[in-house]
Formats: sequence, C-alpha cells, structure tokens
Amino acid sequence: MELSEAMRSTGTCRYYTDEQVPDDVLRAAFDDARFGPQGGNRQPVRWIVVQDAEKKKRLAELYLPYWEGYYAMVVEGTKAVGAVPATVESANHFAHHLAEVPTLIVVCAEMDGIHPTDHELGRLSVVGGASIYPTVQNLTLALRQQGVASALTTLLCAEEPAVREMLSIPDGFITAALLAVGYPAKGFPRKLTRSPVEEIVFRDDFATPMYA
Amino acid sequence: MELSEAMRSTGTCRYYTDEQVPDDVLRAAFDDARFGPQGGNRQPVRWIVVQDAEKKKRLAELYLPYWEGYYAMVVEGTKAVGAVPATVESANHFAHHLAEVPTLIVVCAEMDGIHPTDHELGRLSVVGGASIYPTVQNLTLALRQQGVASALTTLLCAEEPAVREMLSIPDGFITAALLAVGYPAKGFPRKLTRSPVEEIVFRDDFATPMYA
Repeated sequence: MELSEAMRSTGTCRYYTDEQVPDDVLRAAFDDARFGPQGGNRQPVRWIVVQDAEKKKRLAELYLPYWEGYYAMVVEGTKAVGAVPATVESANHFAHHLAEVPTLIVVCAEMDGIHPTDHELGRLSVVGGASIYPTVQNLTLALRQQGVASALTTLLCAEEPAVREMLSIPDGFITAALLAVGYPAKGFPRKLTRSPVEEIVFRDDFATPMYA
Repeated sequence: MELSEAMRSTGTCRYYTDEQVPDDVLRAAFDDARFGPQGGNRQPVRWIVVQDAEKKKRLAELYLPYWEGYYAMVVEGTKAVGAVPATVESANHFAHHLAEVPTLIVVCAEMDGIHPTDHELGRLSVVGGASIYPTVQNLTLALRQQGVASALTTLLCAEEPAVREMLSIPDGFITAALLAVGYPAKGFPRKLTRSPVEEIVFRDDFATPMYA
C-alpha cells in the first residue's frame, strides 16, 4: 500500500466485524512496526495480544468508568474536543462494546529503555513517549496496509496496577496504550478532519506561519 | 512509496548533504503527517521549521551539553544502549554538527490538547506523548517517501525555557522533540537492527510468547 494513502485513511475505528485477525496478519504488522525510532536503540516496546474473552471483558470493565468520566466532561463542555458530536457518540458506543473487539493489544514499555528529558521542567512530562508511540503508529499503519483497522486509546493506563496483575506484566515495564484491532464494519475513512498546514507550521519562530 | 519499505528504511540519519529541502517537499510531508491519531481530535502538534543559520547555531549550542552528558554516561557504561559503538560515534558526530543540518524542526504541542491518564501512578508519565509522537512518526515517514532523511531527538527539551524565548513559543505550548531534516549523505539504511517479533510479542499475558 502506498504510504500517503495509508496515513490519510488510518482513522480511529469504533465499529468492528466479529472476524478475528489471523496471527500471521498481526505478525506481519509487528514485524514492520519494530523499525520505529527510539532512543539508543533500546527498543522498549512490548506487545500483549489479548484475545481471551474473559480477559477482554475484564479490560473493558476497567476501561469503562474512565470513559464515562471523560464522556461526562465532554458532554458538559468541561473537556474541549475537536471531534464532532457524532464522533463522540461513536466513541461512546466503542467504549460500551470494547470487549467485543476481536483483538485488544496492551502496549507495554520498559522503563529502563526510556530517557526522559522534560521531567524536571515543572510541567507534565511527555518525552518518554517518543520511544514508544512512533512504533505504535507504525503498527497502526502496518495493520491498515493489510485491511485491519484499529483505535489507539490511553484511558486504561489509569488502571495500570490492575492490568499489570491480570497480564503478569513484570516490574520495570509500564502500560502505555490499549490498541483495539479488527476488521472495520464500516470501511476506512475517506476524509479525516484535520487543521490545514497553513495553521500548524511556522518558520523560524511561532509567530510566523510558513505557508500563509 | 510502499509503506513497509518506508518503515524499514527510515533510520536516524546523522550525516546530511548541504542541500536545503524545498518548502514544497516539507509541505507535502506536513500535509500527510497531520492525519496522525490524537485524543479527541484536539490536534495539539505544531511545527517550527528553523532554517535561519543563527537560530540553528543557538539550538545546537543548547543541545550539545546534554549530548555530552549522555555520551559520557554511554561511554562509561552507566547508560545502557542497544546501539553499537559505531552508531554512538556517529551520534557524537551528529551532535557536534547539528547546526549544519539544513533544517531543524522544533516540535511543539498544546498542553490543553493532551489528556494524560498515567500522571497519578507515581511513575514517569508518558501518555501525553500518545497525542504527539504518532504524528511525528508520520512526518518522518512522509519525508522518507520523498527521499528526505531525519533524526528524531529529545535532548533539547531540557532547554525548553531558552527555546521558548528564542522561538516565541507561547504559554500553553511545550516543546516535545527536535527533528533534524535533510538529504542523507550516505543513503538510507538497508538493514536496521531490531529485536525479532518472537522476543517482543506475547499472547494473553506477558509470560507467553505469541510466536515462539
């Protein structure tokens, strides 16, 4: 599949068919994804593929209260989103049917493999994610290439201790995301809504749009 | 360009030619990259393209001490890396010639657009990066597609206050990465070294390799 097409049509999928994704399809995606950049070639990312019905049900139960809290803030208007109301409602459907998604992938990362540089600035640290989420994005693209859809979510991270115990995640590894994976019930998006380049790229300082 | 080939040959480039990357080539990459996933379609990522010689020099001066500290730890063996010694030496060359890279892109992110879920776990938070680094990875792939190489680095984030002042980054936005961008002096990598799928994918719990 051509790269631009893959990037432009890899949206968050919230409706899946019941068909399971074959192991060899997942394998091909993991095989491509591992070439993502990460600091010092320490390769911190590990993947746990959860297809066991009971475990998916438990993950969904842990996820739902965090979605309900987030959803309430969005509906009340106390949490800003760029998503349109229909998208929020489909995300609500997704949260209530998470256990039915064929495959849930818990993304783990080895803490020793991460080298944060923004943890002493007195603000939320994000840089640890630079050695994790490029590889996660590679996976979503490599799945898309094979006709497999996904949704990258992070609400479950708040329940890391419970997830750690359920999936025997060893000390020294954290949970960084939950990826829902399966075949899309409604196809792939043809037109994702994003800000134009004119509004998001600057030249030499933040006050000078590059393409205005 | 075919997606798998792009992912497998987008390595960290540490040697660049002097040729500048045309604005329209950068624009095409930004245009593809913006379709990356991020929470609530809040699209927090902004890009500052720095090509001004004095500003690049100053960014390189800010970067170098952090590299020197990191490099010393690697050489002493107090910082573990998976990279081979030759790669560490090329990274050292890169750090000392950062100002000569044709384009440096400072990746910014709007804090209000980030929804961390792991900041109350008593460990380093990484989840904010889930709304930033997938889009950054899209950019490196979209550049690669056009024959442009890059290096994703995060050491400069430690100097965020100085970078903020120099580039007029407003309150509410953070710096999340520095991307070196240009044409590769030594071509693209043919074989990046990564752990095999057998070692990094598990089924239903972390103790059970999926493809062993």
